[in-house]
Amino acid sequence: MIIYEAKDWWGALKHFHTSFSIRVLLRRVGFVSLYGILLTLFDQHVIDVHLPFDGTLFSLLGITLSLLLVFRTNTAYDRFWEGRRQWGSLVNYSRNLAVLMDSLLPDEATTNRIYFARMLSNFALALKGHLRTGVDFAELEDPGDGELETLPQYTHVPSRIAALLLRRMQELRQDRLINDTDLISFRLYHQNLLDITGACERIKKTPIPFSYSFFIKLFITLYVLLIPFVLVQTYGYFAIVAITLAAYALIGIEMIGDEIEEPFGLDCNDLPLNQIAQTIRRNMHEILGVPPSVTVALKQETDYIKVN
Amino acid sequence: MIIYEAKDWWGALKHFHTSFSIRVLLRRVGFVSLYGILLTLFDQHVIDVHLPFDGTLFSLLGITLSLLLVFRTNTAYDRFWEGRRQWGSLVNYSRNLAVLMDSLLPDEATTNRIYFARMLSNFALALKGHLRTGVDFAELEDPGDGELETLPQYTHVPSRIAALLLRRMQELRQDRLINDTDLISFRLYHQNLLDITGACERIKKTPIPFSYSFFIKLFITLYVLLIPFVLVQTYGYFAIVAITLAAYALIGIEMIGDEIEEPFGLDCNDLPLNQIAQTIRRNMHEILGVPPSVTVALKQETDYIKVN
Amino acid sequence: MIIYEAKDWWGALKHFHTSFSIRVLLRRVGFVSLYGILLTLFDQHVIDVHLPFDGTLFSLLGITLSLLLVFRTNTAYDRFWEGRRQWGSLVNYSRNLAVLMDSLLPDEATTNRIYFARMLSNFALALKGHLRTGVDFAELEDPGDGELETLPQYTHVPSRIAALLLRRMQELRQDRLINDTDLISFRLYHQNLLDITGACERIKKTPIPFSYSFFIKLFITLYVLLIPFVLVQTYGYFAIVAITLAAYALIGIEMIGDEIEEPFGLDCNDLPLNQIAQTIRRNMHEILGVPPSVTVALKQETDYIKVN
Amino acid sequence: MIIYEAKDWWGALKHFHTSFSIRVLLRRVGFVSLYGILLTLFDQHVIDVHLPFDGTLFSLLGITLSLLLVFRTNTAYDRFWEGRRQWGSLVNYSRNLAVLMDSLLPDEATTNRIYFARMLSNFALALKGHLRTGVDFAELEDPGDGELETLPQYTHVPSRIAALLLRRMQELRQDRLINDTDLISFRLYHQNLLDITGACERIKKTPIPFSYSFFIKLFITLYVLLIPFVLVQTYGYFAIVAITLAAYALIGIEMIGDEIEEPFGLDCNDLPLNQIAQTIRRNMHEILGVPPSVTVALKQETDYIKVN
Amino acid sequence: MIIYEAKDWWGALKHFHTSFSIRVLLRRVGFVSLYGILLTLFDQHVIDVHLPFDGTLFSLLGITLSLLLVFRTNTAYDRFWEGRRQWGSLVNYSRNLAVLMDSLLPDEATTNRIYFARMLSNFALALKGHLRTGVDFAELEDPGDGELETLPQYTHVPSRIAALLLRRMQELRQDRLINDTDLISFRLYHQNLLDITGACERIKKTPIPFSYSFFIKLFITLYVLLIPFVLVQTYGYFAIVAITLAAYALIGIEMIGDEIEEPFGLDCNDLPLNQIAQTIRRNMHEILGVPPSVTVALKQETDYIKVN
Repeated sequence: MIIYEAKDWWGALKHFHTSFSIRVLLRRVGFVSLYGILLTLFDQHVIDVHLPFDGTLFSLLGITLSLLLVFRTNTAYDRFWEGRRQWGSLVNYSRNLAVLMDSLLPDEATTNRIYFARMLSNFALALKGHLRTGVDFAELEDPGDGELETLPQYTHVPSRIAALLLRRMQELRQDRLINDTDLISFRLYHQNLLDITGACERIKKTPIPFSYSFFIKLFITLYVLLIPFVLVQTYGYFAIVAITLAAYALIGIEMIGDEIEEPFGLDCNDLPLNQIAQTIRRNMHEILGVPPSVTVALKQETDYIKVN
Repeated sequence: MIIYEAKDWWGALKHFHTSFSIRVLLRRVGFVSLYGILLTLFDQHVIDVHLPFDGTLFSLLGITLSLLLVFRTNTAYDRFWEGRRQWGSLVNYSRNLAVLMDSLLPDEATTNRIYFARMLSNFALALKGHLRTGVDFAELEDPGDGELETLPQYTHVPSRIAALLLRRMQELRQDRLINDTDLISFRLYHQNLLDITGACERIKKTPIPFSYSFFIKLFITLYVLLIPFVLVQTYGYFAIVAITLAAYALIGIEMIGDEIEEPFGLDCNDLPLNQIAQTIRRNMHEILGVPPSVTVALKQETDYIKVN
Repeated sequence: MIIYEAKDWWGALKHFHTSFSIRVLLRRVGFVSLYGILLTLFDQHVIDVHLPFDGTLFSLLGITLSLLLVFRTNTAYDRFWEGRRQWGSLVNYSRNLAVLMDSLLPDEATTNRIYFARMLSNFALALKGHLRTGVDFAELEDPGDGELETLPQYTHVPSRIAALLLRRMQELRQDRLINDTDLISFRLYHQNLLDITGACERIKKTPIPFSYSFFIKLFITLYVLLIPFVLVQTYGYFAIVAITLAAYALIGIEMIGDEIEEPFGLDCNDLPLNQIAQTIRRNMHEILGVPPSVTVALKQETDYIKVN
Repeated sequence: MIIYEAKDWWGALKHFHTSFSIRVLLRRVGFVSLYGILLTLFDQHVIDVHLPFDGTLFSLLGITLSLLLVFRTNTAYDRFWEGRRQWGSLVNYSRNLAVLMDSLLPDEATTNRIYFARMLSNFALALKGHLRTGVDFAELEDPGDGELETLPQYTHVPSRIAALLLRRMQELRQDRLINDTDLISFRLYHQNLLDITGACERIKKTPIPFSYSFFIKLFITLYVLLIPFVLVQTYGYFAIVAITLAAYALIGIEMIGDEIEEPFGLDCNDLPLNQIAQTIRRNMHEILGVPPSVTVALKQETDYIKVN
Repeated sequence: MIIYEAKDWWGALKHFHTSFSIRVLLRRVGFVSLYGILLTLFDQHVIDVHLPFDGTLFSLLGITLSLLLVFRTNTAYDRFWEGRRQWGSLVNYSRNLAVLMDSLLPDEATTNRIYFARMLSNFALALKGHLRTGVDFAELEDPGDGELETLPQYTHVPSRIAALLLRRMQELRQDRLINDTDLISFRLYHQNLLDITGACERIKKTPIPFSYSFFIKLFITLYVLLIPFVLVQTYGYFAIVAITLAAYALIGIEMIGDEIEEPFGLDCNDLPLNQIAQTIRRNMHEILGVPPSVTVALKQETDYIKVN
């Protein structure tokens, strides 16, 4: 994620180069400009190629396209924001579970306190890995139950961690350390862990239907290819400026949508999952009053940039 | 579903032919072009047929139509996405139920573990069939309670499977294998199975009101039929290009909306229900630590295509 | 409701006559055409009545109006869809309640099974009547508790049925047939019955604020009345075609909105409440394994039409 | 609230005078017309004051303004509808609480039945007063616990009534008239009373941010003041008609938004809180089977009008 | 927050100077005007600099930009409103917790009543500080458990207060002052405290993706810089007026969006968190029937202004 001060207009503009896949956008806009230049030169020096279109239909199709692009933008942002909301929920429910366990476990029950602090941290870290390039087991802390070694056998690690948490609670009940009431409360919070997992998988695995994506991309392509034919007679060489501007606007909106609709990756506009997971880790240990493990290899994955 | 890499613009465009009911769209656009060609020829060689319309009203009606189409697009996408969300919930609640049963049942309670793993898998497979062309009983695994044979007698199979799950829990309580607290937790998750079923049935059975669908289709038809009369004088033969483009845009948006508003079918933009159900099946068996049945006929229904 | 195959474009267009209050729309558009004809004739043969408006302001007001109409369409559709969602919930919670009772009652507890199957069916039928023209007591099945005769005394029948269901559960608890845990689960599902009732009443009783409805209707009226004055000079007799088209678009969108924003009536675009209630009735009896009553007068209220 | 038959187009138009703050709108539109008249006369007879603007920028700013107004309309309507939803929830949860108490209390427990019927009615009436001009204690029925006299001491009366309800339940439990399970169910419904209170307070106390309100008002003002300068040359005296129309559209949309965004007042488009509260009162007494008090001074506050 | 009477049009306009970062907007619009003046003078007296653009493309890009700005406005307002909703929930759940404790604690249990009244107040005050410039410990009231002094050691103070509340409840249960049922109810309300905290942190920490913010700012910048070249030939010196107006509209919408999308600060359009926290404080003490502490230093942070 790029952290920025929204109200600082020029500060934002200066960081052009750190912003999204700007190189790709620039390259694409460059291609369109080149195409515009060639066509304009051809028109001015060889044969008059312009179409006898007035602005009406051209303008109407442009508005239809703009409306579609705003629909696309909305959709992409909703997915981005839902992804953020799910990770916000993960923070909330991790804290709720930790606060609950803190009230249930005596201060001196260090083994259990460490177990829950580490397992809840592990869940967040495993989910991050699961949504990105795979769980990095070196990041996980050993909660001391001997299960850490068996985790890599499972295809769905977050589910396994969730199952282990519930099994541990069941054992605490059998040992009469907690009672049925406490177990119900725990389960009510706990179910959210897998709900969040499923929601993130849904966002990750189901992009906007291919038809829309394709339809919009083809529409933009046809539109941008036709613009010069319409504009070259009236505008002459200035048609090149106009084409470049239009390409910037249309291709840019589409590309940002493509980028943020799956917010769990490592693109610079994606969510800082590693930061959030580390925050959860710190919170869990603070709430349960136990020190974090020192042996674990904290990933130095900086997934955010500060621009102003 | 078509799986694609959104950021690969040309890769997407190349898969024109795999994308949605493109043949139907092309045929329809072809008809409109033909109509445009005939009318233009008639105008240029026989009688001047153009209407003395300037662009204003024409353009205004076009904007109204575009706004309606974006409304339609939004609605269709919301239904697609709600359908996806429901199946995502099915994944979540299946996992939650499996994780709960895993914590309640001793490791050696293989019969019960197999029962829940298979019944939860069966629920997802039955719901898939229920929403498509009917439940395929050969896909279901025998949970070992002798009820599999009686299932085809029921008109609403998912309800019956949900009822059997709850009955089994009731028996476990009577056998004192679980207690009241556990039963409450189970029911809280379990109720979601039928909620999801009902929500999917709702999306499937209630399309956008006929009035809107009809109104938009008639509007597009009238509009596309009138375009050539308005454009033919100014544009001459180029009117054919303009008509084809406009038909592509307007008919295309409407058709994609029609296609994705009921996302449970086997159209290439529909949801990969079979894949999701198979994922649930694998997850259930992994979480409950039992092997899947080997006798069941797994449907080779590939409901997704990877394009780039 | 009109059931149709969205992808069949011409099939849909052919059913023009079955679609919504089309006679009213045609009559209104006819009046506008007549007005346009008279004004055009007057302009061409008597006095030049056109206003010296160019398209700019006219077009701008048209866009403002289109945006308002899309807002109106969105609002109406949201209400339609929320109504459908509530009745979908009624299906879900009826099933959840039936599945729960099925697990709690022994197979041989026929009296109680019949009681719940019939009362849950009655609830859906009573709610349908309550939202339409009043509860039809001949449709309700006698659950065998002697309360059916007293129902007509109550002004709010669905509330009474909900109260009777809860009272019966209380009796079952006093007779130790169920326990407290079961009662809590029952109540959690049961509360949705009255929530759904209230939500439907809300949609039915609170239309879009009068100000908006009035404002939009007056705006359309003024706009349609002014169009001919603006168009008649440029278009001549073709102004009549243009006026008719514009009237079709603007009045049509507004009328569909008016029609579907209260989806519980018997208009042909309204929801098939009778069908849904009958589905619930069949489901309840199937799940609880009891045969439906044969003495009840099933209403032959066909509130849906299949058009293609 | 104004109750009307949406489909009766002319019926609605005839009730122009009962509709919203129409006098204010008319006065404002009148001012703008006057301004237009003076400016046009000045232009025609004294000095040519028109600006050399063509329609492009003028039209573009108009579209931007229209989009902002639709955003504003949407926001205002969402608040109106959320307010309505909250009062719908109040109906639902009052009924749920009444139905629950009806099942828990024996038929002969008249004192307790009267207590809950009256206190639940009082809650709705107190909330209405709290959101309008203050609680009218003469409207409240005495539930017979001697607390009615102490209510005026509290700054937040609905909170106090909610607290008294929960205290009474606690006493019933101590007297073993209900058990813990019943108390949990009661609390689950009861918490909604204060949630609804808070949500209504939120809508009432937080209008759309001042910046937006101010920005839109200034934008409209500048726009309407500039229109005549742009139109007067082309349109001559007809500019007056155009200005009046534009003022009607722009100021009207803004004013309706201002009116309905806080729907708890006594404006004619506001919600009929008194009617809803009286409905709750009747329902409570019917469900609990007790007659309403005869000594209470029912407010004859008719907050709805029927127009057609 | 600025409190205002929405219906008072002129009253609102008069408070121009108190409204949002108006100085910044004015300065920015001033810069654009200056640029327009220089360019116009250059064009009129030195070299003709206008581009041969007609309005079509210019207008089309303007509409695309307006649509993007409305998307931006919607997003910013949604975040503002969600922030408000969260603080409304904090009011609701604080009241629900207080009402619950009031029913559980005997009237004479003053120590416990004071404890909960003060801790719930402290939670709201700490959350306010946490979202602004840091918790001000002088604002917090001493609940009498000796923990107030240890609070500054914690990095996440709201979590700690939530944990202490749950620990206290656990102690009350161990002392048999409350039972398991009461604890479940308490936890169901209590979990919302941390959910609200997390949701506010999410809004505060995740602005609209940098790509969108940057893209829109660059689009506006390019657009505003190009306008004079397009308008100067047709409009002459009046181009300066047009440029200023367009800059006001486009920059203004963007700036308001930037301002309200993070509503927890001390900008004049931000939420009055201090007022809300003080309201919670008063409510807690009134509901639990205990007097507020007199030794605490109430922050005189007036975060609202009344303008008419």
